[in-house]
Amino acid sequence: MGDVVAVLGGGQLGRMLALAGVPLGLGFRFLDPTAEAPAGALGPLVVGELGDTEAAARVADGAAVVTYEWEGVPADTARSLESRGATVLPPPGALDVAQDRVAEKTLFRRLGIATPDFAPVDDRAGLDDAVHAIDLPAVLKTRRGGYDGKGQRVLTKSGDLGDAWRELGGRPLILEQLVPFEREVSVLAVRGRDGATAYWPLVENEHRDGILRTSRAPAAGAAEGTQATAETYAERVLDELDYVGVLAIELFQVGPDLLANELAPRVHNSGHWTIEGAVTSQFENHLRAILGWPLGSTAPVGASAMVNCIGALPDRAAVLAIPGAHFHDYQKAPRPGRKVGHVSVTAPDDGTLAERLAMLPVSP
Amino acid sequence: MGDVVAVLGGGQLGRMLALAGVPLGLGFRFLDPTAEAPAGALGPLVVGELGDTEAAARVADGAAVVTYEWEGVPADTARSLESRGATVLPPPGALDVAQDRVAEKTLFRRLGIATPDFAPVDDRAGLDDAVHAIDLPAVLKTRRGGYDGKGQRVLTKSGDLGDAWRELGGRPLILEQLVPFEREVSVLAVRGRDGATAYWPLVENEHRDGILRTSRAPAAGAAEGTQATAETYAERVLDELDYVGVLAIELFQVGPDLLANELAPRVHNSGHWTIEGAVTSQFENHLRAILGWPLGSTAPVGASAMVNCIGALPDRAAVLAIPGAHFHDYQKAPRPGRKVGHVSVTAPDDGTLAERLAMLPVSP
Repeated sequence: MGDVVAVLGGGQLGRMLALAGVPLGLGFRFLDPTAEAPAGALGPLVVGELGDTEAAARVADGAAVVTYEWEGVPADTARSLESRGATVLPPPGALDVAQDRVAEKTLFRRLGIATPDFAPVDDRAGLDDAVHAIDLPAVLKTRRGGYDGKGQRVLTKSGDLGDAWRELGGRPLILEQLVPFEREVSVLAVRGRDGATAYWPLVENEHRDGILRTSRAPAAGAAEGTQATAETYAERVLDELDYVGVLAIELFQVGPDLLANELAPRVHNSGHWTIEGAVTSQFENHLRAILGWPLGSTAPVGASAMVNCIGALPDRAAVLAIPGAHFHDYQKAPRPGRKVGHVSVTAPDDGTLAERLAMLPVSP
Repeated sequence: MGDVVAVLGGGQLGRMLALAGVPLGLGFRFLDPTAEAPAGALGPLVVGELGDTEAAARVADGAAVVTYEWEGVPADTARSLESRGATVLPPPGALDVAQDRVAEKTLFRRLGIATPDFAPVDDRAGLDDAVHAIDLPAVLKTRRGGYDGKGQRVLTKSGDLGDAWRELGGRPLILEQLVPFEREVSVLAVRGRDGATAYWPLVENEHRDGILRTSRAPAAGAAEGTQATAETYAERVLDELDYVGVLAIELFQVGPDLLANELAPRVHNSGHWTIEGAVTSQFENHLRAILGWPLGSTAPVGASAMVNCIGALPDRAAVLAIPGAHFHDYQKAPRPGRKVGHVSVTAPDDGTLAERLAMLPVSP
């Protein structure tokens, strides 16, 4: 038997990690709270909470390396596995940073990475102070636990503060400047155990209702300087955290500048295009990195786009009839707002890609 | 749950079929005589002989479609599943043809497809007659059951006949002209349930000791006419057999001419390069075809080569350090002459591909 990789979390990211790892001779085990987790098709699934250290230890037992596919995994779980002798990568310290928006942005600033202005908000008076310091419009967010646009309220005028406080108050919060960005981009980076790094080309992302809808890569018209800035930002975080694996940083582009919004210490939705659109996918390179193997080329292969299927899958035959289209069904029950699959489209050039995207039965 | 595909045979071809099918939302079940079959990592494996119709029926029960990954599957097994109401694709008639070298070459000739001269050999006198008709050098082969160079003897002079007969006689045989070919190529074709067809670019194959070592695609210097001839040959076979799925035909190239050697009614070793080197892999298109879905583009993505790992795997890190290299470990126990994995290398052009192949720790 080949090496076993233990994965904390058994969602679609774990599923796609395993699809990349089986050809490499790897076996997979997963920990997930739900018995129907999408990764269960690819290896044994232990059903348990991610904070259940005993269940996590069963999944990690004998594994060559433990990794995670969700930044919400309690850092304590990861550290308890380390204390029992497991190798956990990316390092659990990345979870501490990713789970607290204030810690995250403080780290960015300390490393010279531009971010929108922000201020922690601990009580109602603190909210007034923060609004005074940052000015409106701004976004009030929970410091912990929000994702896909949940746990946040946009404040455009002082009259919005009361409602926002009633909804979100009582938990540690952060107020962030609402940046008039031109577009959202992300940089996907990978760092090996030996410190080698590689970067995929910048991705342009379009969100709707707080959920990623479409990623295009390489991002159209990204100046060389913009790519270099993004790589420099990512490299500082990778080195600071002694990071191993794939890291994603979401950024706002404002003119030639990039402002870091948040990081994800894992394979990322905006990197799914790499399965068909890059020489080496984010999933394969994450595995290569955490196992101490040489990283693969991150060069793009033509132009790519990824469209999330939210709530339900589009008609499969209609998708497959589009040249260069690939269908990814996570085998999740349909539910409003749920990511149940994605469609990737590749093309030799941007023009052809646009034509093909226009044929998609899901609105890109 | 998505549709289930039942696969007769659980080797590396079944494993790679499942790796292509899981993203499409498919589930897989396999029938294989060995409990350690490589496909077992991707779905439930029923351990049983491929001629065991009851075991096959258990695998096929409730499946959307039944397919096979080996041309040695008894056609009776396939037909027994059809008689119980299963859809078996490619059609079992393709097995009849593929399992008998005389039937195969007779079909080629009937369809106007050039082949080396051949004659059936049923007894010792028949061997003399055949040598008289075809001339030496020639190859004496068993009509059934040979693969990877097994069950055949090259005859270069009349003195070779006695030994060859002692080794192979007593079974139905075929004598085939030994063609002084320039190279061996193969054409991979796919036909959908609606009769739509698609063809990958010609592959150049190099065998050693009767086993495929290296495939390169698109085959260097293949004139447009040669590609067209190969496609015409394949199309005639596809239409004649009312074929659905991927079909491979191995051919000898002699000057501008192509002579058909044999066909394989399944995904094929010389098509493994399509996983990374084509817009749609042979595995995905086989599944699309047998499920009645639209076929995907067979266009190549740059230049590709596939090198089989025979007997044992090469050093994984050394392979992964080569740009554009992808490692495929079938998780089979090492054994002399056994295909235990393959390495694919992709590159933007033939020159870069040659440089990368020269870096391979396995001799290409």
